[in-house]
Amino acid sequence: MSVKELIDVLGNQAKTASMSLRNVSTEQKNRALLAIAQNIGDSRNDILKANQLDVKNAQEKNLSDALIDRLLLNEERIDSIIQSLNQIALLEDPVGEITDLKYRPSGIQVGKMRVPLGVLGIIYESRPNVTIDASALCLKSSNAVILRGGSESINSNQALYKCIQNGLKSADLDVNCVQLVDTTDRDAVTSLVSNENVDAIIPRGGKGLVSAISESSRVPVIKHLDGICHTYIDDEADIKKAVDVAFNGKTRRYGVCNATETLLVHQNAPKSILENLVKLYTDEGVELRGCEKALKLFSGMNAANDDDWSTEYLAPILSIKIVENIDQAIAHIEKYGSGHTESIVTENISTGRYFLNLVDSSSVMINASTGFADGGEYGLGAEIGISTDKFHVRGPVGLEGLTSQKYIVIGDGHIRG
Amino acid sequence: MSVKELIDVLGNQAKTASMSLRNVSTEQKNRALLAIAQNIGDSRNDILKANQLDVKNAQEKNLSDALIDRLLLNEERIDSIIQSLNQIALLEDPVGEITDLKYRPSGIQVGKMRVPLGVLGIIYESRPNVTIDASALCLKSSNAVILRGGSESINSNQALYKCIQNGLKSADLDVNCVQLVDTTDRDAVTSLVSNENVDAIIPRGGKGLVSAISESSRVPVIKHLDGICHTYIDDEADIKKAVDVAFNGKTRRYGVCNATETLLVHQNAPKSILENLVKLYTDEGVELRGCEKALKLFSGMNAANDDDWSTEYLAPILSIKIVENIDQAIAHIEKYGSGHTESIVTENISTGRYFLNLVDSSSVMINASTGFADGGEYGLGAEIGISTDKFHVRGPVGLEGLTSQKYIVIGDGHIRG
Repeated sequence: MSVKELIDVLGNQAKTASMSLRNVSTEQKNRALLAIAQNIGDSRNDILKANQLDVKNAQEKNLSDALIDRLLLNEERIDSIIQSLNQIALLEDPVGEITDLKYRPSGIQVGKMRVPLGVLGIIYESRPNVTIDASALCLKSSNAVILRGGSESINSNQALYKCIQNGLKSADLDVNCVQLVDTTDRDAVTSLVSNENVDAIIPRGGKGLVSAISESSRVPVIKHLDGICHTYIDDEADIKKAVDVAFNGKTRRYGVCNATETLLVHQNAPKSILENLVKLYTDEGVELRGCEKALKLFSGMNAANDDDWSTEYLAPILSIKIVENIDQAIAHIEKYGSGHTESIVTENISTGRYFLNLVDSSSVMINASTGFADGGEYGLGAEIGISTDKFHVRGPVGLEGLTSQKYIVIGDGHIRG
Repeated sequence: MSVKELIDVLGNQAKTASMSLRNVSTEQKNRALLAIAQNIGDSRNDILKANQLDVKNAQEKNLSDALIDRLLLNEERIDSIIQSLNQIALLEDPVGEITDLKYRPSGIQVGKMRVPLGVLGIIYESRPNVTIDASALCLKSSNAVILRGGSESINSNQALYKCIQNGLKSADLDVNCVQLVDTTDRDAVTSLVSNENVDAIIPRGGKGLVSAISESSRVPVIKHLDGICHTYIDDEADIKKAVDVAFNGKTRRYGVCNATETLLVHQNAPKSILENLVKLYTDEGVELRGCEKALKLFSGMNAANDDDWSTEYLAPILSIKIVENIDQAIAHIEKYGSGHTESIVTENISTGRYFLNLVDSSSVMINASTGFADGGEYGLGAEIGISTDKFHVRGPVGLEGLTSQKYIVIGDGHIRG
C-alpha cells in the first residue's frame, strides 16, 4: 500500500468514526477520556521505556538539546498529561448547544446548533504530550482526528496511542476516532493536507512547519506563525502600571509566543517609565535594542535595525521605539506585528477605545500584560493553539474553535408562501 | 500596467480603506448607504441606458435568454436595488459588539469583540444587482471590497459603481472602500484569489464559476456549490404536514437552491401521503423519478438512476426513494446530499432529535419546508450567499458571517504570575 493509499484508508475510517461521534453522549466521551488517563497511569513504565528509546535515537543523531528536552517524558510530565485529560473531561461539552432559537414571523423557530467540524488532522513535532492533548480536545468536541507526530517521537507516540485505543474501546467508541499515522514518510503529510475527508488541519510546531503546511494545504488550516507582540506606553500612562505591564510582558517567560518583543513608547510619556524599565530590564539581563531617539536618551542600548522590528526573539532581547503619537504606534504594529497580541498602557478611556478598535490582532489589551494571551487565562480550559488568522477562529483555540454552527428550523407543517 | 499589477494596486488601496473603516461610525456607514440609494434613483436613466448597451451586446453575441434575463435591469429592478440599500441601512451594525466580557480569577476582564474580516473579493456573473447588494453588505460590516463582475454586465456595473463612488464621497468615506475591477481580462480573477491583501473570496454564480474559484484560490472562500436538498417523510409523520411540506419544498420555486430535489419516504409511512403527493405533483407538472420500490407502487413514474440522486435539477423534476428506516435516509443524504438543507417530517420527538444530531447540513429542519432556508426567513435581513462549508460560517451568510471576533482584555496594570 502506498503512503497515499494509507492516508486514504485513514481518511475513510476517520469519516466513518466522525459520523458515529455525532450521536455520542457527553458522558460516553468523558468516560473515554478518563479511561485513557487510567491507561496511561497503568502503562507508565512502557511509555517511559519507549520514550527512552526515542531519546537515545535522538542523542545518537546528535539532535539539539532543546529538541531532546521537548521530546523527553518523565514521571512529572506523565502526571501532567494525566491531569490534562482529567481537566478536559471536566470541561463543558460545546456540541449540541442550541442558541438563539426564536420564532420568526412565518411561525417557524430558527436557531443555531453547535456541531463538530468532522475530521481534523494534527501535524506536530517532537512533543509527545500533543498526542494526548490534541486527541482529548478533538474527542471532547466530537471530532475524529488523524495524528501525525514527529519521527523523533514515534516510539513514545505509539505507546501513548495504545492507551488511547484501550480507552476508546473501554468506552465502546469507534477506535478510529483517533488514528496515528504510523509511518515517518514525509509524503504522509502531503496526502493528509489534501485528503477529501479532512475538514481542517492544525499544525503544532515551529514557524518552518507551520508555513510549509499552510503553503501546501488544500484544506483550511488553523494556525499561528509568529508572536511578535507589542506593548505601547501612551503619554497618559500611569507610571507604575506601565512599568509592571511592560516588564512582565517581556520577562515572564522568553520562549513563549505571547512575550512582548517590541516596546513602543509615546515621546511624551513620563520619563521615569523608561528610566525605570531600562534599569529593570538591564538588571534582568535583557538586551535592549533602541531606535535612534531611544539611543539618544539611553547610552547603554544597542541600535535596532529593520530586522529587529520583525523578529520574534523568543529570547531576553527587547526592541524599543519612541513614537510621536498613537497613530504611529498603530502603524508600526500594522507593519511589523504578526496579529497575535498587543497591549496599550493608558489612563485615557478614549485612547483605550481607539486602540481596541484600530489594532487588528487576535488579542488587544488595555493595561494588562501580553503574557495573559492564553486559553487558560481566558477561561477556555485548554487550548489546541492560538490562531492569528481572522477566518473561523481568532486567538486561543479551545473546544469551541473546533466546532461550527448549523441552522436548525422547527415547524409544525409550515410551508413558505 | 499588467493585470496583476492592477490587482496589486487595488489590493493595496483596499487594505488602506479597510484600515480607515475600523474606526467609522454606524451613522457614517448608513449615511453612505442612503446616499448610494439616492444616487441610483437620480441616475436611473444613465443606468438603464448602460444596461441596454449590455443587453444589446449580449443579444448580438447570441447569449441565452436566461442570461439576458439575469442581466436585464428595468424600473422595477432598480426600485428593488434601492429598497435593498435602504433595508441594509436599517440592519443592526454587527461591528464592535462586545460579548462575554467577564472577570477572570486573575482580575483581568476578557471578552470578544466583533470585527470586520478586512478585504473581501466578490466574483460574480451577469446580475448587476450584486454590484450594489454585495457592496452594501461589505460596507455595513466595515469590510473593503473588490468587485469583479461578469464581462456581459460591465457597462451596467460601471454605471452603478459611479453611484457607489458618489455615495461614499458624500459620506466622507474613502472611495476605495468599494472598488470595481475595470477589465474583463480573466487574469484579474487569478490575481485576485491570490492577492495577499484579500482576506476572503465570495463567488456568486453557477457551479462552474464557484468550483473553478475554489480550486484555484489561495484565500479562504465562502461558497456553496450545490443545493441537493432532501425531504424525509418518517413512518410517524402527520399526513397533512407531510403532504404540505413535501409539496411546498419542491414546487414553491424550481430554480432555487433550497428546493427539495429528492423525497425520501419511510416504507411504513401512511400510504395516503405518497398517493396524495403523486397526484399533486403530477397535476402541477412535476416529473417523478422513482426507485424500484416506488415504481412498484406507482405506475406513472419514470425510473431514477444513480445520477438522479446527485443532481440539482433546478427544474420540475423530483426523485423519490422508499427507505427501510431513518438510518437509510440519513445514509442516503450523507452520500448524495450537498450539505445544504434537509427536512424531516415526523411527530416523534426522539426521531426528530436524532435527525437534527445526525444530519450534517447547513440547515436541518423538522416539519418545515426546505424553502425556508433563506437569510430573510432566518432573520438575517439580507444574505450574501449560503455557505455549505463548515469552516467559519454555515448556512445563509449575513452581516455577521462577514465578520470575525477578536479577544479583548482590560486590566488595571495586571501582570501574569
